[in-house]
Amino acid sequence: MLYLVGLGLADETDITVKGLDIVKKAERVYLEAYTSILLVGKEKLEAYYGRPVILADREMVESSSDDILNGADTADVAFLVVGDPFGATTHTDLVLRARELDIPVQNIPNASIMSAIGNTGLQLYNFGQTVSMVFFTETWKPSSFYDRIKENRQIGLHTLVLLDIKVKEQSLENLARGRKIFEPPRYMTVAQCASQMLETEEERREGVYGPDSLAVGVARVGARDQKIAAGTLSQLSEVDMGSPLHSLVLLGSRAHDLERQYIREFAVDKRVFDSAWQHVYEDNGKQ
Amino acid sequence: MLYLVGLGLADETDITVKGLDIVKKAERVYLEAYTSILLVGKEKLEAYYGRPVILADREMVESSSDDILNGADTADVAFLVVGDPFGATTHTDLVLRARELDIPVQNIPNASIMSAIGNTGLQLYNFGQTVSMVFFTETWKPSSFYDRIKENRQIGLHTLVLLDIKVKEQSLENLARGRKIFEPPRYMTVAQCASQMLETEEERREGVYGPDSLAVGVARVGARDQKIAAGTLSQLSEVDMGSPLHSLVLLGSRAHDLERQYIREFAVDKRVFDSAWQHVYEDNGKQ
Repeated sequence: MLYLVGLGLADETDITVKGLDIVKKAERVYLEAYTSILLVGKEKLEAYYGRPVILADREMVESSSDDILNGADTADVAFLVVGDPFGATTHTDLVLRARELDIPVQNIPNASIMSAIGNTGLQLYNFGQTVSMVFFTETWKPSSFYDRIKENRQIGLHTLVLLDIKVKEQSLENLARGRKIFEPPRYMTVAQCASQMLETEEERREGVYGPDSLAVGVARVGARDQKIAAGTLSQLSEVDMGSPLHSLVLLGSRAHDLERQYIREFAVDKRVFDSAWQHVYEDNGKQ
Repeated sequence: MLYLVGLGLADETDITVKGLDIVKKAERVYLEAYTSILLVGKEKLEAYYGRPVILADREMVESSSDDILNGADTADVAFLVVGDPFGATTHTDLVLRARELDIPVQNIPNASIMSAIGNTGLQLYNFGQTVSMVFFTETWKPSSFYDRIKENRQIGLHTLVLLDIKVKEQSLENLARGRKIFEPPRYMTVAQCASQMLETEEERREGVYGPDSLAVGVARVGARDQKIAAGTLSQLSEVDMGSPLHSLVLLGSRAHDLERQYIREFAVDKRVFDSAWQHVYEDNGKQ
């Protein structure tokens, strides 16, 4: 059996009891280590499980999935994913491959940022489609997220923006020379995301989200030192939310007063927040 | 401290290790028992936790929240919620009340249907806003969900439809006579949801989702006997998915071929599925 086991969002104790039992009994344990990270490392997990854990990078999962699945028709293989196993597209591929090989699959769901974002007090019913934002470079600034955000905005919905992480990336030079030297991991911050959003707005000028638009930044959701900051994009482009992972919510105009009450507590500056909130409503004729 | 502890979706072992530790140590343990249910009862949970569990119905949570919070400034109170604690609006109220009383709050996230629906193989990025559908009566057929679904449909996104549950409901007669006699609990099925969708389409005639539109019904997500069925609304209006809880996904036109491959496995009738799928794409000029 192939078990896809969600690990939740923060530390080793966010696994479910069901998931932990499976990990302890499985013949091999893989940890998917490129779409997200826990706030604790592989060593901590190994100590907690009392088991060796094999790090599975993108290359292994996408090109050598048969190694992962090897023998899973008779033995149990656990494939651990931070958050929920179906948060990322890539694991759907693994299951399709398992099906081809007649390997049974069981999924152990867990908290995902897509639902845990409710932690901000923003109502999950008021969210439109989720988008991802990648690190801009000097020459590559993909902005398809902007069109999706615009669609949400037009019907008054919030947008959850998931932020890029770069692990095991090679510099262009090392890549060209075939040197397996990897850059240090990078995790996009709330401030970088807010800046890139403003840069894109500046470029596209379709009035989707500007410097005075309200957003909510989150860091380390579900952890003891979780941090939430509400403010304008201009404010958030300068906020320091500490260590990863970060996400951002762009506030839709259909926001409810209960949501306002809840997130106001996290305002970078309550006066600015109140004035920006009023503006969102006036623009949309809701108050 | 007030701990909001997510229980996940299926049984007693879907709680996280972190959550279980809290439940075992808390002074009082409440189980919110009206927005969702686990597939196991209160007795099973009490045996598993080794602790008494107090059932919290809507009246208690909404009108007597101070009883729940009583003493939580010095002692630990655990408030258990099926799925993720922030899936339902009502718990935001409880946290706001705790804030007023200067009671610290910690949230323990868990799997929610809003992310676990990824289990179908449908990509979470392709979902628009989530809607709820209530049981229609002869005289009351609220259809605001239809407008939301239309918004999602127009931009090609899937819609997750959460289905009504009725617990501790009184008949009109018993209500009028002040008799505390409750009807047996009712849980909307995939078939009832598909029928009500078709009834609403018949009424509104805005061409949102008709008998030949594709949808995916799910039952008992995350449980060992989880069931998924893909088909037209006409087919799903007659499907038997077994015991609760059920949910339904209306398929958007932006669906990816990888999603097709994945859900085709669950087709009620593969021939009908293939033909309906092709139709979705032809209508939208995607193939």
